[in-house]
Amino acid sequence: MDLKTCQLFEGFSEQQYERFVTVTETRDLEKHEWIFHEGEPADRLYCIQTGAVELLTRLDERVELPITILRAKGSHFGTSSLVEPYSYSLSARTYEKSTLRVVQRDRLMRLVEQDPGMGFILMQNLATIFLSRLKETRQEVKIHFKTLFQVMRY
Amino acid sequence: MDLKTCQLFEGFSEQQYERFVTVTETRDLEKHEWIFHEGEPADRLYCIQTGAVELLTRLDERVELPITILRAKGSHFGTSSLVEPYSYSLSARTYEKSTLRVVQRDRLMRLVEQDPGMGFILMQNLATIFLSRLKETRQEVKIHFKTLFQVMRY
Repeated sequence: MDLKTCQLFEGFSEQQYERFVTVTETRDLEKHEWIFHEGEPADRLYCIQTGAVELLTRLDERVELPITILRAKGSHFGTSSLVEPYSYSLSARTYEKSTLRVVQRDRLMRLVEQDPGMGFILMQNLATIFLSRLKETRQEVKIHFKTLFQVMRY
Repeated sequence: MDLKTCQLFEGFSEQQYERFVTVTETRDLEKHEWIFHEGEPADRLYCIQTGAVELLTRLDERVELPITILRAKGSHFGTSSLVEPYSYSLSARTYEKSTLRVVQRDRLMRLVEQDPGMGFILMQNLATIFLSRLKETRQEVKIHFKTLFQVMRY
C-alpha cells in the first residue's frame, strides 16, 4: 500500500509520511456500498487503495447527479473532513468492490499539532486541489450560461 | 489599518500578526482601475482597506461576467497567488477609489518558512474559503441545470 501516490500528502518527508501512516486504517467494501451522504458530519478522509468510488450530488428529491468516478490508486475523497464546517459536500459510494485507506481527522490533527510543517504541506495541497476544482466548476457555470443563451435564442 | 478583519489571517497570534504586517504594502487606486486580469501570473494577494473592488470573469470575447463586488474592509482577493499554478482565476478592478493592502507571495513565504505554524493557519483558512466557494459554485451549476430542464420542457 502506498499513500504516497495521493496528491494530498505530496511533499511530506519520509519521517512525516511514516508517522502519518500510523494514523490510517484499512476498510474493505462491496460494490455499491454507500460511504457517506452529502450534508452528513465529516470526520474521515479516504484514499483508494484498490477499486473505484463514485461521487454524486443531489439535484432534487428524484435526481442524484453523478459528478465523477475515482479509479486511480491514491485518489482521495472526503476532504471536507479537514476544513470547517466539517460537513460532506458530496455523496460517495463504491462503484466496484474496493479497499480504502481511512484517516480520522482527530488523529491526523494531533500529528499536525506536534508538527505544524506537516500541517502546512497538507493544507497547501488541499487549498491547491480546492482551487483547481473551483476553476473547473466555474467553467461549467460558463458552459451552462452559454447553453442557456443558445436554447433561449432558438 | 486592521488586517485582522481579514478571514485569511484569523487565528494568527499577536506576534505572528505583527511579523505579517511588516511584509505588506499600501496602494492607492482610482475608480475603475484594473488590478489584474484573469490568467495573468499571480504573485500578490490583496486586502481592501477602504473602497470597493469588482471581480469579473470572461464569458467570451464580448461578455465579461461580474461575479461579485467586495466592499467590506478586510475583504481579500488574489488568493490564487498563494497556490499553484499561481495564475489569477478572475479579473479585478476597483469599483470605487480604493486603498488596498498588498502582500507579495515571496515575502510571505519567507515568513512561513521560519514559522510553519503560521503557514498552517493561513493555508487552513484558504482551504476553508475555497471549499465554501466551491460549494456555492456547485449550487449555481445545479440551478443552471434546473433552469435548462425547465426551458427545454416548454
